[in-house]
Amino acid sequence: MSVADVNPADVNPTGVPPVDVTTIPLRVDLSTADLHPSLEDPALNSMNFLNEVANHYPDAISLAAGRPYEDFYEVEALPRYLDRFHRHLIEARGYDEAQARRTLFQYGRTKGIIHDLVATNLELDEGIRVDPESIVVTVGCQEAMVLTLRALRAGPQDVLLAVSPTYVGLTGAARLVDMPVLPVSGGTAGIDLDELRGTIHGARAAGLRPRACYVMPDYANPSGLSMDLATRRALLALAVEEDILLLEDNPYGLFYDVLSPGEHRVPTLKAIDEARQVVYLGSFAKTVLPGARVGYVVADQRVRAADGSVGMLADELSKIKSMLTVNTPALAQAIVGGKLLEHDCSLVAATVREREVYALNRSHMIGGLAKRFADLPVSWNVPTGGFFVVVDVPFPVDDALLERSARDFGVLWTPMHHFYGSPGEVRSLRLSCSTVTAADIEVGLDRLAALLADELG
Amino acid sequence: MSVADVNPADVNPTGVPPVDVTTIPLRVDLSTADLHPSLEDPALNSMNFLNEVANHYPDAISLAAGRPYEDFYEVEALPRYLDRFHRHLIEARGYDEAQARRTLFQYGRTKGIIHDLVATNLELDEGIRVDPESIVVTVGCQEAMVLTLRALRAGPQDVLLAVSPTYVGLTGAARLVDMPVLPVSGGTAGIDLDELRGTIHGARAAGLRPRACYVMPDYANPSGLSMDLATRRALLALAVEEDILLLEDNPYGLFYDVLSPGEHRVPTLKAIDEARQVVYLGSFAKTVLPGARVGYVVADQRVRAADGSVGMLADELSKIKSMLTVNTPALAQAIVGGKLLEHDCSLVAATVREREVYALNRSHMIGGLAKRFADLPVSWNVPTGGFFVVVDVPFPVDDALLERSARDFGVLWTPMHHFYGSPGEVRSLRLSCSTVTAADIEVGLDRLAALLADELG
Repeated sequence: MSVADVNPADVNPTGVPPVDVTTIPLRVDLSTADLHPSLEDPALNSMNFLNEVANHYPDAISLAAGRPYEDFYEVEALPRYLDRFHRHLIEARGYDEAQARRTLFQYGRTKGIIHDLVATNLELDEGIRVDPESIVVTVGCQEAMVLTLRALRAGPQDVLLAVSPTYVGLTGAARLVDMPVLPVSGGTAGIDLDELRGTIHGARAAGLRPRACYVMPDYANPSGLSMDLATRRALLALAVEEDILLLEDNPYGLFYDVLSPGEHRVPTLKAIDEARQVVYLGSFAKTVLPGARVGYVVADQRVRAADGSVGMLADELSKIKSMLTVNTPALAQAIVGGKLLEHDCSLVAATVREREVYALNRSHMIGGLAKRFADLPVSWNVPTGGFFVVVDVPFPVDDALLERSARDFGVLWTPMHHFYGSPGEVRSLRLSCSTVTAADIEVGLDRLAALLADELG
Repeated sequence: MSVADVNPADVNPTGVPPVDVTTIPLRVDLSTADLHPSLEDPALNSMNFLNEVANHYPDAISLAAGRPYEDFYEVEALPRYLDRFHRHLIEARGYDEAQARRTLFQYGRTKGIIHDLVATNLELDEGIRVDPESIVVTVGCQEAMVLTLRALRAGPQDVLLAVSPTYVGLTGAARLVDMPVLPVSGGTAGIDLDELRGTIHGARAAGLRPRACYVMPDYANPSGLSMDLATRRALLALAVEEDILLLEDNPYGLFYDVLSPGEHRVPTLKAIDEARQVVYLGSFAKTVLPGARVGYVVADQRVRAADGSVGMLADELSKIKSMLTVNTPALAQAIVGGKLLEHDCSLVAATVREREVYALNRSHMIGGLAKRFADLPVSWNVPTGGFFVVVDVPFPVDDALLERSARDFGVLWTPMHHFYGSPGEVRSLRLSCSTVTAADIEVGLDRLAALLADELG
């Protein structure tokens, strides 16, 4: 029996004929002026605009999409991950069948069911040693950001600092909780510490309360920049001194350079955080798969409640989560948990192939830029990891140029102005090398070169 | 190789020894006074308190838990659902393998990937006919509530109305977006329409803007009450006249009475909504499984943007969702989609066994109350569906009584004051019959009878 064969009257016992919605007058019911101001905000509309351009020109080569490489995904692996996690519940946790089934199917622990595996993973891969109880497993890293900002935004005086250009998801999360974001230049070091201190002092002088600074120290989106160890230590010292938290977002840290010889990795802020100053935001979207939507936040800060009791920030975030999404889907956690278990909780071990693909693509893209643009007034940075390269050009890069690029030249990229959260001319664009082949990169850069030649006259 | 055999130095190439977190001073880092006020709100602490009591007395019989019946869940069914949905992508949607894999694994459509199946389900089971584009698939119904309230709360003048007693998840969602909730009595009809109108007028006179009224017309949590058809039509007419939206939450509608002869179902508000006045909130937690965390919102209202273009409220909610959770996990949607497909999109057909279990349990519970309390100053309502029965007693029911009940009598239930959102004495308690056996109900009610006898002296 197909869906079309079902007669609604057989199964719909209400017996009331459905309203013919086509006869409802096409009057307007609401106006965005009466809805939350974030809905008219550029930050929330950037993603929609960029997706729309991509959808209008499906045949264009995309050097825009920040999605992970997808050729290694296997549908057949999903039941295996589920089975692996189910066996873990029984063999390692000692659950009986009913408990294991309940863990997968029912409402459960708000802070998650793979927090212990995440803690092991953090110690193995990052040298981050934390109490598993300080971890809240979230619906992607986006929910982790919303939980953290919702908690920290106590009133209209509370503001966030963020390295500019900034990931649009952070700006959007801040808009949703009505929290202003004060930009701090990234410069070439990943953050301008003098400007950070000046912005904090300026905000305080204006009666504001800077709560935290959002940073992506490894291969940032969109800048591609990383902070060196000295900058990280200085940033931590500044945070302690100025009494602000650091929100460290690390989606790309495992995609370090594997082509050059020598040391490739710098420890995360959280790994060298000796004062609980860092709230660490984690994502499995790039290391496992985006379609599970599993991320987490490590929030080991100690919080005193009105009754004098002292708990962990993670438990406050958990209360907010219980009213936002209740639980991160247990089945999605089980799939991520199964993959972690298959690799003994090391994602460094699990992502060997991906790391190589990204390193080769980055190298190919940077080589391709040098080949085409060496003699033009065009420059680019040379990130040592991650998905992104930023290209600077001698003219403003606006959305109209992107539309022209897609329509007339068949190549997509991302205008950097979307990452600045304020109007103003920006003369750079972001290229992504994460979902493309070497051949795509060649053709895409040829088309970009044709566009730039046309613009440069 | 087990996790214990892995040497962090082998896989952690940062080479920096982890911080010894046990040496970090145990100073307090933050205070809840500096965090969002919702964290000190009774609504967000109710669930935690109730869970804690349940955890402290694991051997007590629980007539408190609102979780669905779990004995029909099968771990073996999960790969089958995934496979069924995967085949649907290929056979019905015409995707190739790469597109199908991308749909399951990658970032995807913000409004969801099972919206068409949900639309078919709504037409079959509820006689609700809507454009699939008006549906946003969400991380449980909780996210659907947050999206809707976030959109409707444009400023501090915006308030929500809600039938009191109210589901704590609604109160919590409103707190997260700083939206006050004005209570309207449910009475015995499910809503007191005169009071609703009076509260709307009173709010307007006070400079507030009532945006919507939240209702659960079928077997409400916690009251067990349902609205008859005449009340529903009158409520819709009032909403049109007063220009407020109705937020209709329907998690229990399919658990109607199957033991009595005759008509069992009354159409939902959305099924008879001739003016797009209803935003419909749907949940698969009780009909499919909670561990997928899949719900949805139907928001077909037409919205005019600042640029004059007219879109759907669903698309505004989608923008908010893109900054809250990005996507509902595709893998969780695939599992729910697979179950829907196995039953030709009818959950009336898929929940025959569950409907019978709940009907038998309700009947058993109501019979058990009559047997034990007929001669005492204790009364209860007789819901014709859903999970809950409310018992009225001649003394205040506070949290201390619940703790005594758990500790000394071995039975858990829910003090109704948690559902009123304001301090004040409430003389009733909620019993749930959804996760218990007939034997549990017998023993649980015996213990409740002993407690009440003790209280009544």
